[in-house]
Amino acid sequence: MSYYPSSILNLIKNISRLPGIGEKTAERLAMHILHSPRKEAEQLSRSILETKDKIRLCSMCFGLSDGEVCNVCKDRTRDDAILCVVEQPADMVSIEKSGSFQGLYHILSGVLSPMNGVGPDDIRIKELISRIKEGNVKEVVLATSTSVEGEATAAYIADRLENYPVKVTRIASGIPMGGDLKYVDQVTLKRAMETRRRMKDDG
Amino acid sequence: MSYYPSSILNLIKNISRLPGIGEKTAERLAMHILHSPRKEAEQLSRSILETKDKIRLCSMCFGLSDGEVCNVCKDRTRDDAILCVVEQPADMVSIEKSGSFQGLYHILSGVLSPMNGVGPDDIRIKELISRIKEGNVKEVVLATSTSVEGEATAAYIADRLENYPVKVTRIASGIPMGGDLKYVDQVTLKRAMETRRRMKDDG
Repeated sequence: MSYYPSSILNLIKNISRLPGIGEKTAERLAMHILHSPRKEAEQLSRSILETKDKIRLCSMCFGLSDGEVCNVCKDRTRDDAILCVVEQPADMVSIEKSGSFQGLYHILSGVLSPMNGVGPDDIRIKELISRIKEGNVKEVVLATSTSVEGEATAAYIADRLENYPVKVTRIASGIPMGGDLKYVDQVTLKRAMETRRRMKDDG
Repeated sequence: MSYYPSSILNLIKNISRLPGIGEKTAERLAMHILHSPRKEAEQLSRSILETKDKIRLCSMCFGLSDGEVCNVCKDRTRDDAILCVVEQPADMVSIEKSGSFQGLYHILSGVLSPMNGVGPDDIRIKELISRIKEGNVKEVVLATSTSVEGEATAAYIADRLENYPVKVTRIASGIPMGGDLKYVDQVTLKRAMETRRRMKDDG
């Protein structure tokens, strides 16, 4: 690749380290940056470092935040009586995008995984319990993933919360909306059948 | 999008300005940058600005270069008797990648386009002629694109070079290799027919 000057080669190399960006795309992006106004390149360059420098974990929910407390925890219009427990900040973003939840979050930063040496003290379960001890929370929605580890983590947390005056719920799992039954895996189908519900809530 | 802290939002916005990168991809890349080691983010950030700062045009061929003269022009093993004329630095890169050319380049930085007010003095034809006047060049390969403007530019340069002791050639146009005749457009087919050549060079 000696047909590129070394600073362009270097940029191509750094861009192609990003996930899902191959060398061709990296080349195209590098050429775009080269021809774009200097101001745009500066903004991009600066925002990369700013993200690394400014982002820290929210002291309440352990989600991503610019300051001490994140935008969601700061928002006084949200319902602080319901707490949604997720594995990762990205899960919180997904739920926020769906617009289906108006309460607050608690990010575990992982799941229980004895195989990988991750025990209850390695994820933020103690912090969850202190939040519940404060007394505001009436419901804890366990929204860990439906993997074996996510399920085990949800079960463990449900056990730990048994003696606190909170309702503990689990997000539903089943056939995805718009999903075709013949393409759904057996485990999901079994779960969907087991947790079937009445069409009319008359009972 | 208030579920992201503003510095992440800012990074997503700057990344999604890049061509072919939608908001979803920008989000994914921003999260990758956030979780990648600081050193990697620094390298990416720095190489963006370095490219803007260091790259200039080669004083010989007007291609992209880190210094006064580009890697290709600097390379003493290349044949300086043959000069390939292209429109843009990217065209030079394409030819270099094909490995089909061992001479030097001359980058016009555009094509003649009277409709857009681009005349012979706006692209580097004068500079091409001075290089030819130096006396080393024996052949000029016109490798402008086969668009109307590229063809006109090639014809114009061929005219201008008529009185200089150089052979002026044009890269061949025709059916792309591996191409199926039924999918080739009429103009290309007509050109391919007109410029047909003997299978055996016996006469």
